[in-house]
Amino acid sequence: MLVHKVHRLTDPAALRQKLLAPRSIALIGASDDPAKNAARPLKFLRSGGYAGTIYPVNPRRTTVLGERAWPSLAALPEVPDHAYVLLPTEAVVEAVAQCGKLGVPLVTVLADGFATAGGIGAARSAQLKRVSDETGVRVIGPSSLGVIDLRTRLMLTANAAFGEPDWPVGRMFAASHSGSIIGALAARGKARGIGFAALVSAGLEVDLGVGEICAATLDDPGIDGYLLFLETIRQGDALRRFAQGAAERGRPVVAYKLGRSAEARELAVTHSGALAGEDDVADAFLSACGIARVDTFEGLIEALPLLRRVAPRARRRAPAVGVVTTTGGAAAMVVDRLALRGIEVAPPSPQTLARLASAGVAVEPGLIVDLTLAGARYEIMKAALDTLLAAPEFDLVVAVVGSSARLNPDLAVRPIADCARGARPLAAFIAPDAPEAFALLTAAGVPNFRSPESCADGVAAALRRRAPMPWSPPPRPAAGKPRALDELAAYALLDRVGVPRAPAVALDANLAAPPALPFAYPVAAKVLAADIAHKSDVGGVALDIADGPALVRAVGELRATLSRHRPGTTVARVLVQPMVAGVGEVLIAYGVEPEVGPLVMLAMGGVLTEIYRDRVLRLAPVDLATAREMIAELKGVAALSGFRGRPPGDLAALAQAIAALSQLASDPAIVEAEVNPLIVRAQGQGVMAVDALVLLADEVRQTNG
Amino acid sequence: MLVHKVHRLTDPAALRQKLLAPRSIALIGASDDPAKNAARPLKFLRSGGYAGTIYPVNPRRTTVLGERAWPSLAALPEVPDHAYVLLPTEAVVEAVAQCGKLGVPLVTVLADGFATAGGIGAARSAQLKRVSDETGVRVIGPSSLGVIDLRTRLMLTANAAFGEPDWPVGRMFAASHSGSIIGALAARGKARGIGFAALVSAGLEVDLGVGEICAATLDDPGIDGYLLFLETIRQGDALRRFAQGAAERGRPVVAYKLGRSAEARELAVTHSGALAGEDDVADAFLSACGIARVDTFEGLIEALPLLRRVAPRARRRAPAVGVVTTTGGAAAMVVDRLALRGIEVAPPSPQTLARLASAGVAVEPGLIVDLTLAGARYEIMKAALDTLLAAPEFDLVVAVVGSSARLNPDLAVRPIADCARGARPLAAFIAPDAPEAFALLTAAGVPNFRSPESCADGVAAALRRRAPMPWSPPPRPAAGKPRALDELAAYALLDRVGVPRAPAVALDANLAAPPALPFAYPVAAKVLAADIAHKSDVGGVALDIADGPALVRAVGELRATLSRHRPGTTVARVLVQPMVAGVGEVLIAYGVEPEVGPLVMLAMGGVLTEIYRDRVLRLAPVDLATAREMIAELKGVAALSGFRGRPPGDLAALAQAIAALSQLASDPAIVEAEVNPLIVRAQGQGVMAVDALVLLADEVRQTNG
Repeated sequence: MLVHKVHRLTDPAALRQKLLAPRSIALIGASDDPAKNAARPLKFLRSGGYAGTIYPVNPRRTTVLGERAWPSLAALPEVPDHAYVLLPTEAVVEAVAQCGKLGVPLVTVLADGFATAGGIGAARSAQLKRVSDETGVRVIGPSSLGVIDLRTRLMLTANAAFGEPDWPVGRMFAASHSGSIIGALAARGKARGIGFAALVSAGLEVDLGVGEICAATLDDPGIDGYLLFLETIRQGDALRRFAQGAAERGRPVVAYKLGRSAEARELAVTHSGALAGEDDVADAFLSACGIARVDTFEGLIEALPLLRRVAPRARRRAPAVGVVTTTGGAAAMVVDRLALRGIEVAPPSPQTLARLASAGVAVEPGLIVDLTLAGARYEIMKAALDTLLAAPEFDLVVAVVGSSARLNPDLAVRPIADCARGARPLAAFIAPDAPEAFALLTAAGVPNFRSPESCADGVAAALRRRAPMPWSPPPRPAAGKPRALDELAAYALLDRVGVPRAPAVALDANLAAPPALPFAYPVAAKVLAADIAHKSDVGGVALDIADGPALVRAVGELRATLSRHRPGTTVARVLVQPMVAGVGEVLIAYGVEPEVGPLVMLAMGGVLTEIYRDRVLRLAPVDLATAREMIAELKGVAALSGFRGRPPGDLAALAQAIAALSQLASDPAIVEAEVNPLIVRAQGQGVMAVDALVLLADEVRQTNG
Repeated sequence: MLVHKVHRLTDPAALRQKLLAPRSIALIGASDDPAKNAARPLKFLRSGGYAGTIYPVNPRRTTVLGERAWPSLAALPEVPDHAYVLLPTEAVVEAVAQCGKLGVPLVTVLADGFATAGGIGAARSAQLKRVSDETGVRVIGPSSLGVIDLRTRLMLTANAAFGEPDWPVGRMFAASHSGSIIGALAARGKARGIGFAALVSAGLEVDLGVGEICAATLDDPGIDGYLLFLETIRQGDALRRFAQGAAERGRPVVAYKLGRSAEARELAVTHSGALAGEDDVADAFLSACGIARVDTFEGLIEALPLLRRVAPRARRRAPAVGVVTTTGGAAAMVVDRLALRGIEVAPPSPQTLARLASAGVAVEPGLIVDLTLAGARYEIMKAALDTLLAAPEFDLVVAVVGSSARLNPDLAVRPIADCARGARPLAAFIAPDAPEAFALLTAAGVPNFRSPESCADGVAAALRRRAPMPWSPPPRPAAGKPRALDELAAYALLDRVGVPRAPAVALDANLAAPPALPFAYPVAAKVLAADIAHKSDVGGVALDIADGPALVRAVGELRATLSRHRPGTTVARVLVQPMVAGVGEVLIAYGVEPEVGPLVMLAMGGVLTEIYRDRVLRLAPVDLATAREMIAELKGVAALSGFRGRPPGDLAALAQAIAALSQLASDPAIVEAEVNPLIVRAQGQGVMAVDALVLLADEVRQTNG
């Protein structure tokens, strides 16, 4: 079917031209019925004023919406830069193949039905991918509502919102898995005077993903920030490469990702055909990319101006926010939300309070600077802001204004606008509906928020953002079933990376007499076999063995129990270790996720922490400082930190163990390594693995950076 | 100082007249400077067109803003219905006392400074309260920005927002602890065509609280729902009485309460002078009142129309939501949030799918009804909605519309409007900015939401709302230090209410020889003394005692340990119990909170669950069904429900024990009763208290209903 292989468009500048500034466009399957989705791109390109050549392709008509229609792609007088396939699902693969054959460099596919239940959707997607691979044609979608560049008036979209004139042109670029969202973003932006440069509906990312699409615009001087709406993480390496490029150019990236709940993750599967994966994995990934993640849809629209002002955080100390307000209640809503997001609102220092007083701002000492007593006047708000923005204790200042903002923005809003260029970033929340106040702030360049929730969301996202971790695409373990190491071999790996573990000896399981051991009783005995991963589930573990005769008995019982649990299995060897006591235990693990790469995890051991889903993830490897951060984020670790008079555990040694385990990221043969439990002993006494499970890949696949 | 006692206004109808329809108003301290807050009430009453008599009182001027000023309250030709005291903090108490003396029935106080740090604020508040008690004058505030009735154009407020003309008049009543919020609510409502009947800034509630203020309007025919903005729960009985009255009249009440975070609770203390208390206590209280609690500020404005359509839930089964959409991404945001709020989105049943198909609506089976394939057309959306609204599996249907809503609301929004009177409640979220679509929905009476977060918030609040628990104000334990019972006496109380507990015998602590016990070894021994509440903290507990001689030794050690820990203490008696094994343990407790009344709590025992703050509260007493709900809500209970092959615990017996303990609410002498741990044994084997702590009040104070 497919014969002609064309040059595959990979150069970002060339891709950008075809994507955002195509000289000619074919609309394959353009409809003459104005009510149909397939009629919209032609209508919108014309009403928008696109200056390039448009070729409607429709074999059943000579005209479409009053324009000449071409019978086929092959009949066109030139190879178009970009083709938008508007045909029904069943006709898509053939049409894209035709594009590839004729040398069209870029095709966008509207049709749905590539993520349908059963195998049909997946089969169609695979066909489309193969067409792209074999012919070299680059594909956006399927399920793509198209590409909009408001600067070139390229309204190449079936999204109903873009039938409208007079879009404000801005410098933001939006990419979304969901096509409808680009319309919602643009319309909500327009309503508040925020413009976009361009928007792309990426759909199912069969070929071109959000990462590669965004990366193509990194040298576009008209773009200075990115909004992503993600249903899942796909093509993680490309996304990460783009995020690095954006960071190098000082362009912030903000993402809303669906799937905080299991239900929405399930929906993402149905809707987009990709496994969204655990949400905290995505969270760790976005964080490592330096992408700020917001939790509210309004936050996605409102946060970018603030991200432009807040440099990614390098320091390890928790950021502190100062709040100044003319209205206690509205400010308290922001404080409440910030605290729930783990962002500390700090009170002004005594020095700052003194400076406020000498600037004529009378305030009560407290968590926030409440100007109710001082009065909502320009001079008061201006003096308060000047003082707070110069105060060393704050990383960012939030100004909250109440009812006066609506009719008299000169009182408390204009001073905020006049502080737009202070020494610290400033953000504003206005409690009432107050269009004039928002316009004033936007014009002055002060990031402003319409709800307490989006304000706290934007501030938290900005303050939590980090510079991207240094990274080059790592070799990945090959697909296929990995093999397990036995516990002794797993310990050897821990020894290599430097994770402390309990002494251990392997003994013949046909133990006739008490053996000589290099450590004292009491001991533990476990079956030693690579094919028994969960030893205690099959009765393969005996604990607290008091002496030699008891050990002989225990090993005999292990063999008997195991042959009951798994008939036919004979236990050849057992592993014997001293019993290790500590003040508590944790689980640390390393693993490689297909889309996001190597991860390291810290969790509390045991049933309750599994129920509470208390775990912390980072992309591996991590340094000691990051490992310490992980420990601080694990809620249950309070039990190891001197909680209610209990002895504190050796958390310094725990951090070392986490960092050490994460170094497995440099070994592509390791698919998974789990230490459970890692005994945490009292301060100064270290940590010690007393069980370990390692999975090895049989071969390693190289990826190119 | 205060001599003249006037009739105290308690009759709701009379209070309502003075509050919302005063025939005359005194503005005490009205300012001639239009920039001052104290000038606003006069300005706004005049610009609003208030028809009653206004008496500006200002001893230092003959005119105020061009009107005659009166030198004192005593100089007025009549006793005004309502006085607004606009004086500085220091002058407030004297002015209110003067009002009381002259027989003014109702006074609102603007001044701040009654919640300042140190004792000054509290002392001022106490003075004001005393003036109210002694003279009978009712007081709103302090820190009240006033009272607005948009029907009578009573703009008796210093809130800057109300200087504006043309407020839409609606049927909602708002009461807020924060004064600024009433302006924000009214302005945000106005921007979306939502009007209020009246709004009151309740401030610090020294006398009249939100409950009594709202209750005064229960027979106002122009009001059909209530919005509360709460910083804390004060005057719980009055609030509960109001909520009952509202429920009897079928008027929904929705509340936003600050203080999900500890930081905001702290702020509420500073700002309002009241202890906000633990947020989950407030949550249990609001729920028992039948007040729907929202989590977002926009939700507070948007939820009431939906609450009018959703009857308080009586059934115990979890409600299920159906979702229909023209845009997968936007719907997924709502689904994600609903799931995080614990509200289940259910897929259409096979029967419903079949009905959709025969109505010409082509959809893929899945969690939501996605009309992308079927097309966003009137007939399709209408048929889909008609089918879903008739489907028995849904309690509520959410319709989500994408970009078409903006330019062409006839396609997918008008059918929603045309389904406003379906068999089930319907709510709509519109993804883009779409003023015309929102206006269409509002005019048709379809509850509509501007953000996925507020939509999920409103839906969750509506579906979680219950009818108020039957209630009459209970007698309360008297203030003062309660006294503890010893463990044996505490067990007697458990026996009385029917909470199973382990057998126990009290022995003389000078145990010379092994005693005869009515149960078998192993046993536990504990010091038995009412003044030692936390026995294990002082070494007063010995566990797993194997036999008689060991018991004698253990009791001797207990005595020795205790005299070391608490020199001078002698142990007279010990309690001996059999060791009780179970599949796990929990903590159940009963207590009386000053503002909200009797509570019952279920928590997992142990350190980790304390760290994870896993506990469930209800107002006591509870029935078995509610106790079962509490168990279902406790996350850690998964460990007792057959988690990962563990034996399931006797949760039926646990529910009985919770319900039994909660019956202590009928005994006002009990201040607190805690069973920790309650051993949960395997299914069919019951539960058993193995420790208990009870605090008794020395006297009981009667409250009148």
